[in-house]
Amino acid sequence: MRAEILTIGDELCRGEIVDGNSAYLAARLWDLDITTCWMTSCNDDEADLVAALTQAVSRTDLVVCSGGLGPTEDDLTVDVVSKLAGVDPVIDEPARARMEAWFSRSGTRVTEIQLRQVRVPAGARVHPNPAGLAPGFEVMVHGVPVVCLPGFPRELTAIHDAGLGRRIAELREAAGNVERVARRIYRAFGRGESQISSACRGLVDGVPGASIHYQVKFPETLVKLVVRDRDQAAADARLAALDAGIRERLGSIVYGSGEIETLVEKVTRRLIESDQAIATAESCTGGMIGELLTRMPGSSKVFRGGAIVYSNHEKTRQLGVKEQTLRDHGAVSEECVIEMAKGAAQRFGVPYAVAVSGIAGPDGGTPEKPVGTVWLAYVGPGDELGTKMLSWPGARDQIRLLAAWWALKLIDDSLPERTP
Amino acid sequence: MRAEILTIGDELCRGEIVDGNSAYLAARLWDLDITTCWMTSCNDDEADLVAALTQAVSRTDLVVCSGGLGPTEDDLTVDVVSKLAGVDPVIDEPARARMEAWFSRSGTRVTEIQLRQVRVPAGARVHPNPAGLAPGFEVMVHGVPVVCLPGFPRELTAIHDAGLGRRIAELREAAGNVERVARRIYRAFGRGESQISSACRGLVDGVPGASIHYQVKFPETLVKLVVRDRDQAAADARLAALDAGIRERLGSIVYGSGEIETLVEKVTRRLIESDQAIATAESCTGGMIGELLTRMPGSSKVFRGGAIVYSNHEKTRQLGVKEQTLRDHGAVSEECVIEMAKGAAQRFGVPYAVAVSGIAGPDGGTPEKPVGTVWLAYVGPGDELGTKMLSWPGARDQIRLLAAWWALKLIDDSLPERTP
Repeated sequence: MRAEILTIGDELCRGEIVDGNSAYLAARLWDLDITTCWMTSCNDDEADLVAALTQAVSRTDLVVCSGGLGPTEDDLTVDVVSKLAGVDPVIDEPARARMEAWFSRSGTRVTEIQLRQVRVPAGARVHPNPAGLAPGFEVMVHGVPVVCLPGFPRELTAIHDAGLGRRIAELREAAGNVERVARRIYRAFGRGESQISSACRGLVDGVPGASIHYQVKFPETLVKLVVRDRDQAAADARLAALDAGIRERLGSIVYGSGEIETLVEKVTRRLIESDQAIATAESCTGGMIGELLTRMPGSSKVFRGGAIVYSNHEKTRQLGVKEQTLRDHGAVSEECVIEMAKGAAQRFGVPYAVAVSGIAGPDGGTPEKPVGTVWLAYVGPGDELGTKMLSWPGARDQIRLLAAWWALKLIDDSLPERTP
Repeated sequence: MRAEILTIGDELCRGEIVDGNSAYLAARLWDLDITTCWMTSCNDDEADLVAALTQAVSRTDLVVCSGGLGPTEDDLTVDVVSKLAGVDPVIDEPARARMEAWFSRSGTRVTEIQLRQVRVPAGARVHPNPAGLAPGFEVMVHGVPVVCLPGFPRELTAIHDAGLGRRIAELREAAGNVERVARRIYRAFGRGESQISSACRGLVDGVPGASIHYQVKFPETLVKLVVRDRDQAAADARLAALDAGIRERLGSIVYGSGEIETLVEKVTRRLIESDQAIATAESCTGGMIGELLTRMPGSSKVFRGGAIVYSNHEKTRQLGVKEQTLRDHGAVSEECVIEMAKGAAQRFGVPYAVAVSGIAGPDGGTPEKPVGTVWLAYVGPGDELGTKMLSWPGARDQIRLLAAWWALKLIDDSLPERTP
């Protein structure tokens, strides 16, 4: 089964935004054994859009579009696709109801222009949008299914996850001759991509249908192991055999496998499961660890609060760091972060606390403590204590993000394994 | 002048990497008054590549390709382009010399396979690669210039900057009829895209060569005003006239213009310029405002610290919020955020403080205070005080981000204008 992905928008063709939707969709199709042969982008131009769609349905078996579903005159997708499908655009009533509820919250009324956004071609299969106003839809054009989605990535992915993915899988099954895919994604943090790929070198050699792929999502790296076979059980078995190998090679660098759970999600979940409260003490990360630990719903069960202590004075006032410690060792020191973590645990009245102090740059480095030097400490129940030093010569934003992730990693490593 | 950008590679069509090259190239072309009408990606497949190139030269005046210049059998660009241009591939001797020098550094010899990388179509204009081994080149196919570049972004941009950009400008000038571009970008925060575009409706009507574009980068919207004219001065003059109109229509929603300064940058800069220190008091944002206020280099000059007070107890302990206030009005109330902001200013000893408390969801909403209800307060020098309530039914991450940006906006609005 061959597919074309069509993304629509002047902002794409002017280079104002990078098209991440095409890659997202191509990866989802690839997982379903659908080969994306073409990815095309065009402007909000009726003639070009007609040409692109006409060509796409003539050379592939499935077309997935994104963009052009907004409320403005520039947004042409519904009209063009309706015309090619030989139907009229109609209001999708459930989407209209959602829009009205949305606007009534802010006391405003839905205008004629905004209603443009909830139109679909008559007879289309509607894919509701859990994350926005414009619904997705699917309609046949010249005998080929054409799926249209909004251009906002979060809406596009929400529609995919809510049911479009299953629908595309159905279309694929109906086409027959499907190769089954067994795959696993490993989330690796603590080493760079080249070290991770070196560690995995040769792993899949000689294993039929197996391949390994790396994707850097700083500060972590996703390692994807894929095995394809006509027979799902055979693919699964070969994947299971490779799984042991990859875990042996990567060890504790892999903090999880599966697409869903990030390190933030994992740490929050484990804290909730173990019913342990935590507090933060942050200098160079400025609140980022707190932000991460409150990102997940339910985090209020375990996150008590934090002290952002950007100045030395605040380190002393809020956390009781000794002035002597700051004088003797400086704010970026093992001694200081230990006192910060202990101070946070005590003052917030929690068993777990994590502290970070570092030089994020671009200024403030010295020969002994260059930019990128970061000290971390955590404390846990029963006087548990650990520290870690980073020295990573990156940019300010990367140093801060890396430090915040290491804080999570220290907590993750120190939380006790659950006995099942 | 119309252009097509063609990016080549299985990894693109499997969604393993996001194609940033197309956006990079499209932005460079747009600046030269070249309209990118099509951006196409295809696999490393000879028939598809021939089809894509043949179509591209038939519908545009310039084709820029990236990818497929590597040493492996998968890399087909040189052979396919040579065939379409009716010439043979030849070794580019300067590139071969560079490659040999490169390999001799590591004591290895250039192999036959590696030499594939330094081939170009006979008679092509070569664009040396300052950042890698494979040179770029330009050749005529069916009367249309086709530029081929390596797929590595670093190499592609290096070739562009080293001379390709100037060469494309030459091609554009030779085509004649060049329109000059005057443009300005306005950063707008505080209203949604549809309200912003409503406010600007009709602004550019009847102004020759003028257009207005909107780009949502949640939680802000970029408004781009563009005027094109053969004469740069004429374009500049019409842009200046429109500038007054857009500022009148959008008022304080526009917090800045120009491509570079974000709200975070602006607030940090203005705090530094006015030499005023600030502290934060955060509940539902969990540290995000502190993270934003410490993102820029130099923020330590003005950011003193923050209190992350996720629990009621911490609101009282760290900031002195009265238990009575929490009982009578709840943590998400105007009264509470005022006490939080005052408590932060007093305890951190700073003139400015900002406080936020809200229900980010998905749980915790009530009929009176649904998810998305957020209260903000700020205090400034001399008992200055302001509050703001948000009610925005979005997702948890969006509610938090919106709240954090509103905190910045309140500070921005309250900082005194500098007298020049």
